[in-house]
Amino acid sequence: MKIGGVHYRSIWNDGDCVRVIDQTQLPFRFEIAQLRSMEDAAHAIRVMIVRGAPLIGATAAWGVALAMRSQNDDASLRQALQELGATRPTAVNLHWALARMDRRLRTLAPAQRADAAAQEAQAICDEDADFCNAIGANGLPLIAQAAQRKKSARVNILTHCNAGWLATVDRGTALAPIYAAHDAGIDVHVWVDETRPRNQGAFLTAYELGAHGVPHTVIADNAGGHLMQHGEVDLCIVGTDRVAANGDVANKIGTYLKALAAHDNRVPFYVALPSSTIDWTIENGLRDIPIEERSADEVTQISGPDSDGVLHHIRITAPGSPAANPAFDVTPARLVTGLITERGVTEATHEGLRRLFPAEAAA
Amino acid sequence: MKIGGVHYRSIWNDGDCVRVIDQTQLPFRFEIAQLRSMEDAAHAIRVMIVRGAPLIGATAAWGVALAMRSQNDDASLRQALQELGATRPTAVNLHWALARMDRRLRTLAPAQRADAAAQEAQAICDEDADFCNAIGANGLPLIAQAAQRKKSARVNILTHCNAGWLATVDRGTALAPIYAAHDAGIDVHVWVDETRPRNQGAFLTAYELGAHGVPHTVIADNAGGHLMQHGEVDLCIVGTDRVAANGDVANKIGTYLKALAAHDNRVPFYVALPSSTIDWTIENGLRDIPIEERSADEVTQISGPDSDGVLHHIRITAPGSPAANPAFDVTPARLVTGLITERGVTEATHEGLRRLFPAEAAA
Repeated sequence: MKIGGVHYRSIWNDGDCVRVIDQTQLPFRFEIAQLRSMEDAAHAIRVMIVRGAPLIGATAAWGVALAMRSQNDDASLRQALQELGATRPTAVNLHWALARMDRRLRTLAPAQRADAAAQEAQAICDEDADFCNAIGANGLPLIAQAAQRKKSARVNILTHCNAGWLATVDRGTALAPIYAAHDAGIDVHVWVDETRPRNQGAFLTAYELGAHGVPHTVIADNAGGHLMQHGEVDLCIVGTDRVAANGDVANKIGTYLKALAAHDNRVPFYVALPSSTIDWTIENGLRDIPIEERSADEVTQISGPDSDGVLHHIRITAPGSPAANPAFDVTPARLVTGLITERGVTEATHEGLRRLFPAEAAA
Repeated sequence: MKIGGVHYRSIWNDGDCVRVIDQTQLPFRFEIAQLRSMEDAAHAIRVMIVRGAPLIGATAAWGVALAMRSQNDDASLRQALQELGATRPTAVNLHWALARMDRRLRTLAPAQRADAAAQEAQAICDEDADFCNAIGANGLPLIAQAAQRKKSARVNILTHCNAGWLATVDRGTALAPIYAAHDAGIDVHVWVDETRPRNQGAFLTAYELGAHGVPHTVIADNAGGHLMQHGEVDLCIVGTDRVAANGDVANKIGTYLKALAAHDNRVPFYVALPSSTIDWTIENGLRDIPIEERSADEVTQISGPDSDGVLHHIRITAPGSPAANPAFDVTPARLVTGLITERGVTEATHEGLRRLFPAEAAA
């Protein structure tokens, strides 16, 4: 995607280091961060310099590559896999990418690992960008059909959190069909859930939709149900951090509430994902997907610029009141209209997933 | 309720002026604002120095009394009723209080109006405090029963926005049963929805629960569904700005989403209100209750203190991105387990309301 006319991916190899866009600084500052070691990569994931399930996977892959550049023995490989694997618990793409790196590297002679790891990390990134393009193409007809139903009126799409190009290597998952529709000349407008407590909607989704020129409006997370009750939402599209084999969907906290409202108002609710987000080992997502509990500080404090552009970090809850911060919830498959993947759109069921990914389901 | 050991109501007559707690300054500053004229009262309601349906009604009543103190002719009475009635559209207590003041004053000789208006405004305040106490007593058994079901474990109650003593003259609506339970020695814990965009939960509910010593935890509005899925919520109690004759409930934006989650997880969902919040003229709340659209600035900006206690007003959305701010939504009666009123608990139906309030329903 382009920032000020320059094409960027969210992560790229730059010879002596890996570079990422520092997403903790957006939308108020555009800064590039350098990852020079496996520890840098683990830190970037943990503190959310990078976030978004596919990008977490890509960053972890580069983390392994950075580790192999400095120490390429078996113990170093194991340690890198372990340390990177412990950074965040919910997104399965992390483990998928690490397992793929492990498979590629473990049987190689140590001296071959640095080059092979860089190649594999790059392949993961290129594949993610390709998959996101395919997700865009596969989701586009859903928006085009909504546009046809509405005749000349604008199509209103609600999204939660950021599942755009900043959450992936390029193009995005949930936003890929929206970019495709906008680029195809369909009149789309996006309701952007603020997405408390980290404001990934108000900060990141609004930023990248604005940069691409897609009409959008930021709303409090509380507002979506009301809009759906009054016909102001034609469809919802969100991303996901892990889809269980039964079609249950883990995504940013609050997604479940929007899925309930969509169901109550017969608004189609789609989830967009590359197949690396499917966890075939979990049969019941609601019961078994681990949910990250993050720091209460993310609820009680926030940063932003004053009218002079000076950044401040302020308290936004009553002093002395504790806070809790579960970062994800699980939307039961029964509330999901369809899953938009790189291979097509399918229902959120074991059968639907198996039909599109027979080899992976059998593995 | 007590602040630092001193008993306060949220509004009181102080001879030459009416005083209110400035709720735009809480929880970071405790300041008393003076209302010296009808215009002061209208301004206080409009900019939310006072808020909460019952307190808006009480403030409007005092606004009429302040008007009559300076000009007591018919034209001044009509103008006060009109100007105060136009301050905020959703809470019906405003119109209820103004109609009551009008009935009391219009047939009086102008010279009698100032004293009569002050008496009537005081009566409205005293009655609201009495009704809130009765709501507390009537809601207490619901919490006591939950405590019995849980044996020795803590009872977890989720609330949205602020329907505490700050939203009323004293004691609160939704929080009244919680205070009653806490004071009766029941081990209660309150999940406090932050309540974006104005943060009445994180700012006001957390503040007053903390001041009263009730255990509580602030959560993002997004978190309640997840907590309910995992058995962490035993019941929900919220307030309301207008209940239609059919039991539909207008309340702070986002209430509908919590009611959906409660219904999906079989968590009882109660709404607490004095009868002044019932609008007998509206048969279908979802269709006909007017929903206030407030300034987008409330979504895009927020104030709070930095670590040195210095207050800042900062931007918390991407620059250039527009925002929308519907302030209320309507929860359909089918999602409401019961209405807790000053006369008892009833189902959210025409019949249930009529049974408790036969005279008002027939008027």
